Amino acid sequence: VVGFGRSRGNLETALARGIIDRIARDDADAATADVILLAAPLAAGPALAARFRPYAAPGTILTDVGSVKAGVVAALERAWTSPALVVGAHPIAGSERSGSQAADGALFRGRRCILTPTTQTAPEALARVRRLWEGVGAVVDVLPGDVHDAILARVSHLPHVAAYALVGAVANASIAGHRVLDYAGTGFTDTTRIAASPAEVWRDILLANAAPLRDALGELRQALDAIERAVASGDAAALEAVLDMASAGRRAIGGGS
Amino acid sequence: VVGFGRSRGNLETALARGIIDRIARDDADAATADVILLAAPLAAGPALAARFRPYAAPGTILTDVGSVKAGVVAALERAWTSPALVVGAHPIAGSERSGSQAADGALFRGRRCILTPTTQTAPEALARVRRLWEGVGAVVDVLPGDVHDAILARVSHLPHVAAYALVGAVANASIAGHRVLDYAGTGFTDTTRIAASPAEVWRDILLANAAPLRDALGELRQALDAIERAVASGDAAALEAVLDMASAGRRAIGGGS
Repeated sequence: VVGFGRSRGNLETALARGIIDRIARDDADAATADVILLAAPLAAGPALAARFRPYAAPGTILTDVGSVKAGVVAALERAWTSPALVVGAHPIAGSERSGSQAADGALFRGRRCILTPTTQTAPEALARVRRLWEGVGAVVDVLPGDVHDAILARVSHLPHVAAYALVGAVANASIAGHRVLDYAGTGFTDTTRIAASPAEVWRDILLANAAPLRDALGELRQALDAIERAVASGDAAALEAVLDMASAGRRAIGGGS
Repeated sequence: VVGFGRSRGNLETALARGIIDRIARDDADAATADVILLAAPLAAGPALAARFRPYAAPGTILTDVGSVKAGVVAALERAWTSPALVVGAHPIAGSERSGSQAADGALFRGRRCILTPTTQTAPEALARVRRLWEGVGAVVDVLPGDVHDAILARVSHLPHVAAYALVGAVANASIAGHRVLDYAGTGFTDTTRIAASPAEVWRDILLANAAPLRDALGELRQALDAIERAVASGDAAALEAVLDMASAGRRAIGGGS
């Protein structure tokens, strides 16, 4: 396992923790691999693929861990030695922390990893990447890229936007000289935990999945409007019905408490 | 400590866990106390006060733990033997769980409890309720009720509405035959944890704090709009600036990871 990245300190931490066997000397050294796994902000992917391409062996597989797939995988297919060797992957696990000091060998155990092959993907390349994820304990699921993107817009990208907006709305607010955020309890901190995620990573995710995300934002606005209408009209029964449906839905999925 | 409530099972659990010394036989028995602490859905408060009032001693203090104060405390003042003996209180602690099986003796330790006396509150009543909260380890803060309500609309009621709306927007959604919620990761479960809170409790809170909540909802919509505008126009620099401001704000308050 050869590490390549922007930050020497991050790579040295990975080496010291036994996450990588050695640090790549240069692009050519990084590209000498059976499988290249990109874990960079999405927009950097195609340019990295183009840098590694001249040094890649004929069968070198290119895969990634990005949170958006359809357009991103298509761009990687165009940038790589052969589109057959590109396999889009997205493990549904992680935290708002980043860097090798936050690495956790058990992170993917029992968690879903979605692979998004296209009509061009070689079955052997797909099987190889599947084994890689099963090797760290993930449960592999295969979906078309656009289905993945529509689903993730709703269960991941939208909650991130909501969390960033909740913090953004109050971050600098004071009321009668009291800083609003000083009164945040666990409800606020849990609900906005993912707003601590790195801005450059989420900038690329939101831009790469703009259309599905905007659909999802429309659905969130409708749900907010339904609650506000019931509040504005003082309709206790309608409000309880809306909240109760959401509450039952949330209790049904468990986790997070 | 005498327990009074709707559910016999809940009271018996409280007794078995040593949370209360005995279960009240009736309204008169429940009202024979130095301090009556209401912990019921907000809208039930004034009616409960009116039920206990005939049996209360001349000095019996009435306090509560409700998440909305100004109008709620005014209604309790009107319903009680004397407005001087009513002390509004709101501990900023809790979880989405309810009932005596979820009780935790350490819940309030080091957490803020806001008291909202009015011009009518007797200093001795305020001091008594302050000692009660300091006795369970809370850090007491005193605020005007309307200031409390404006602040809590933003750090508590708004996040609850957002969480209920996030779940409501996707609870019954399927995409290409895949149930969207099956793909929820920790980002979704953390962000929506508080949507598992009881609907009847939050129905009353949102209705009782309608005006400040609607102001806060307007601020959330503006923050969502700012993110969507940057996404729609593909303005990576503007998007990163918005996300980075929120991310820095969130990291500054800590907790929740």
